[in-house]
Amino acid sequence: MTHAPFQSWAESAPRLIAVAAGRAPADTVIRGGQWVNVHSREVLPGHDVAIAAGRIACVVPDAAYCTGPDTQVIEAGGRYMIPGLCDGHMHIESGMLTPAEFARAVIPHGTTSMFTDPHEIANVLGLPGVRMMHDEALMQPVNIFTQMPSCAPSAPGLETTGYEISPEDVAEAMTWPGIVGLGEMMNFPGVANADPAMLAEIAATQTAGKTVGGHYASPDLGPAFAAYVAGGPADDHEGTCEADAIARVRQGMRAMMRLGSAWYDVATQITAITEKGLDPRNFILCTDDCHSGTLVNDGHMNRVVRHAIACGCDPLVALQMATINTATHFGLEREIGSITPGRRADVILTSDLVTLPIETVIARGRIVARDGKGLVDCPHLHWPDAARNTVHLGHALTAADFDIKAPEGANTARANVIGVVENQAPTRALKADLPVRDGLVEGTGDVCQIALVERHRATGGVTNAFVSGFGYTGAMAMASTVAHDSHHMIVVGTDRAQMALAANRLAEVGGGITIFRDGAELALVELPIAGLMSDAPAAEVARAADRMMAAMRDCGCTLNNAYMQHSLLALVVIPELRISDLGLVDVRTFEKIPVLET
Amino acid sequence: MTHAPFQSWAESAPRLIAVAAGRAPADTVIRGGQWVNVHSREVLPGHDVAIAAGRIACVVPDAAYCTGPDTQVIEAGGRYMIPGLCDGHMHIESGMLTPAEFARAVIPHGTTSMFTDPHEIANVLGLPGVRMMHDEALMQPVNIFTQMPSCAPSAPGLETTGYEISPEDVAEAMTWPGIVGLGEMMNFPGVANADPAMLAEIAATQTAGKTVGGHYASPDLGPAFAAYVAGGPADDHEGTCEADAIARVRQGMRAMMRLGSAWYDVATQITAITEKGLDPRNFILCTDDCHSGTLVNDGHMNRVVRHAIACGCDPLVALQMATINTATHFGLEREIGSITPGRRADVILTSDLVTLPIETVIARGRIVARDGKGLVDCPHLHWPDAARNTVHLGHALTAADFDIKAPEGANTARANVIGVVENQAPTRALKADLPVRDGLVEGTGDVCQIALVERHRATGGVTNAFVSGFGYTGAMAMASTVAHDSHHMIVVGTDRAQMALAANRLAEVGGGITIFRDGAELALVELPIAGLMSDAPAAEVARAADRMMAAMRDCGCTLNNAYMQHSLLALVVIPELRISDLGLVDVRTFEKIPVLET
Repeated sequence: MTHAPFQSWAESAPRLIAVAAGRAPADTVIRGGQWVNVHSREVLPGHDVAIAAGRIACVVPDAAYCTGPDTQVIEAGGRYMIPGLCDGHMHIESGMLTPAEFARAVIPHGTTSMFTDPHEIANVLGLPGVRMMHDEALMQPVNIFTQMPSCAPSAPGLETTGYEISPEDVAEAMTWPGIVGLGEMMNFPGVANADPAMLAEIAATQTAGKTVGGHYASPDLGPAFAAYVAGGPADDHEGTCEADAIARVRQGMRAMMRLGSAWYDVATQITAITEKGLDPRNFILCTDDCHSGTLVNDGHMNRVVRHAIACGCDPLVALQMATINTATHFGLEREIGSITPGRRADVILTSDLVTLPIETVIARGRIVARDGKGLVDCPHLHWPDAARNTVHLGHALTAADFDIKAPEGANTARANVIGVVENQAPTRALKADLPVRDGLVEGTGDVCQIALVERHRATGGVTNAFVSGFGYTGAMAMASTVAHDSHHMIVVGTDRAQMALAANRLAEVGGGITIFRDGAELALVELPIAGLMSDAPAAEVARAADRMMAAMRDCGCTLNNAYMQHSLLALVVIPELRISDLGLVDVRTFEKIPVLET
Repeated sequence: MTHAPFQSWAESAPRLIAVAAGRAPADTVIRGGQWVNVHSREVLPGHDVAIAAGRIACVVPDAAYCTGPDTQVIEAGGRYMIPGLCDGHMHIESGMLTPAEFARAVIPHGTTSMFTDPHEIANVLGLPGVRMMHDEALMQPVNIFTQMPSCAPSAPGLETTGYEISPEDVAEAMTWPGIVGLGEMMNFPGVANADPAMLAEIAATQTAGKTVGGHYASPDLGPAFAAYVAGGPADDHEGTCEADAIARVRQGMRAMMRLGSAWYDVATQITAITEKGLDPRNFILCTDDCHSGTLVNDGHMNRVVRHAIACGCDPLVALQMATINTATHFGLEREIGSITPGRRADVILTSDLVTLPIETVIARGRIVARDGKGLVDCPHLHWPDAARNTVHLGHALTAADFDIKAPEGANTARANVIGVVENQAPTRALKADLPVRDGLVEGTGDVCQIALVERHRATGGVTNAFVSGFGYTGAMAMASTVAHDSHHMIVVGTDRAQMALAANRLAEVGGGITIFRDGAELALVELPIAGLMSDAPAAEVARAADRMMAAMRDCGCTLNNAYMQHSLLALVVIPELRISDLGLVDVRTFEKIPVLET
């Protein structure tokens, strides 16, 4: 493993002390700023920050006494000095970017610390994949902390993942330098039922003195919730309304409020502070999932903080929720999250605390971005072949792999159909009477085919079923190896030959998203790493994603967030109907059901 | 080592979950209380607390569903349920009590967690002594966490302690189960000067992920303070004014505000919150030093919280400063400090949040006190002989050991005299012309003799000098083996024969405090453990201490806190003049000076 050499506070202390005492010059001094103090919740004009060895040596009214001839002076010019922003919970893979490229995309937005759960790669590559993410994270010029994924598979018994995370894996990961806790414990029924494996993962994390991430995606705040809290998760980002946030904080958890590309859970929960007046210290802002396009066009944590302020939150409280509150939650308040001695020198200069223009970003004492432009290298891991070669189909697919055979002699067949609902994660369990041609059941109208193509173990397995709601017309197919959470390959199409072309194409490029019509590829997003991520820059990935979405529209799809709907069709933990490598799954009952009624 | 078996949250989780889910009955339910929620800073009427395995399983509006036939029900009757109180920084030895007896004294006052620095015993018995305190602490029915003492000797080169604490000792202690951090780093000039031993102790603590206690006893908030903060101490209880508290919090430390038996630093600092409006999360209440009499007559942390409220602090904020703020500071917010699932079930029932009557105290799910009466056993360690036999004089002393010889042929001599100042810790460096009789310089008027009698290594060493301010008359002497910080024996007297009697008496009983007049012992406080502590109950020790103070008054002493003045006369870190085993020390220059001017 390579990672950027960076000394601990203890290792740097002699130099920090010497600078603060005036016996040695600082490496860098930020001069004449307004100190946004997230410990006292004050703005203190007229302060200088002296930096040495990448850490803050002192914050004083006048650092002339520790400024030498070789000290780099950054003139704050009366701007506010705010701590670098922290994202309290997120998945890098959602950006379809590697940690390096994700970092490169968000640094100009002022994000200097991220708490990341590489849950997606864990499903594909298991512990070695988590290690690769962790290692590239530690190579970056900003702080990317890793939470060990807790739940792969997400739905044991209902899907086969590339790798299954065990309590032993969790215990091992707790010894790695960049691990700060357990990733979101989404098996909330398992915790409430005292599932031994889930409790063993939590125990390994608690024993290591680290933070157990939560995920309680249910409106039930009765005994089921109480039982989940008693199991140990220390935070939750799945709250969607004020009562959710309040319940979590009262029970001693931290409420993480998210604004992702498609999550809008801040406005509905922040009233717990702005209207109900709860102590804000246990509220944290996060993104959970951001697409490349959001990072390129809208921002990252700066977008979330601005939004919280726009929701009526005091700017200093909003900043606390994206800095010190997060640091404290993860036991890192003496390392990041404020502009005070000993901490990593992660500072943003901004001229307005409401609109929050990110004018200069300093990370570990270096200027890493200015006026939206990154000024720092974000090194790439040498991703091994095992990580770049993860689409294993067993054999080249043909149209016949997608045949859905009708019962002997039938002219029509009644099928269970996954009904996509616009702007909602849950699907509906529909039924449709479908025509039979040449002994095969076929889609008609808005019903087309969906296939889950096994890609981890080259079993050659293809699960076929029907889906409705995309609005596709003509002879087309779309395939994606981003296929939450087990990340096989989801193929949706109106034509079996196009489906085979699309699936084979992703095998050829090592994963990603493609869309074919009439034998021609309309768009391709290459995601060669684990079939989930690109190591190209965010802007390039965002452009490819834009082309892909345009191609979906060209094929007749008018759904909002149509690609997200596609990639979630195998998420066998969200009702009502999903597809997995094991078959069609009714998530209301957690049972497999047949594609065709007999 | 024996300590009370108590399961971790992880070990208890299956049972806590079962209770919270309603699948198993709670051991205990507190029914119908007003939940004082220190996370959200709210009072929530109508709540029940279900307890299992000594931990909180759930807090719900109605715990009937987890109440079985064998569940003990405690009727709160609408009382407030507040978390057990935490003392953020304190020395058990100051009560002249062992941890067990200290616990027994404070439990009825609602203290359920203490963060203790056994600095005094460290000076006498070193690491083994710290271990004994730590071990007895872990045997108690409440939570006594230990900070590893950092500075023995307090003044290297100016005194000889029984034992010197090394960075290796600190590193070893960090592996013990009850150690939560480093005790107050009082060598603040050492830190600011990057003393390698002090930095190594801090580094060992930080590396272990624990909290470095601070002690910055200077009004200088300039570069010297900045350098100290850069060295790593995370809190400070030595602030005495609002500016001190504000400076510490702004610099990312926690401001500990103390109300001890003789410390009154809350009223002067709490205005940072009540008037200046700083975020209160980084303020903590503590006692630092409490005498037995205070514990018996006035209270402990309940006294501090009441006082903070009387100073105008919101009661919920005051309670946060004695519960969750403290827990968070020491990385224990998922273990103590609030009434929420998974935490130790430490709960006080009180009918008023301002006057704070401590009606029922529950610790780890058991009722440990009711209406001021303790209901629980506080087990004693079997203190070994080495801890009970620490007064080693080398030989029985005689009056001649206290001779101060005059220069040849002199009729008078000019002496340097330690001037005690009422109600102040600093002394004054005085000079006096003293009479000579039979070749010996003698006290006169208010000037009497003081001796530092070596007691750790049986060297037979006696350092003689003069002191003024006590007002003693007649032929008397008072001796104490509590003699901060090196805890040799301080003898003050008007008569050398009485001084010898007093010193020998303490050697005979193994340490404590005695006062003799005209050959008769007027009072004795036996402190057989390390010469610092009694294993008798607090009330008994308080009565003995009262008798001792009455005897001091009988001998003519009218000073406030006269015994404290006596015991601090060897504290060679506080100006101006002190005595040590190495001689008379001018603490303004850190130099030894002669007793007689020549």
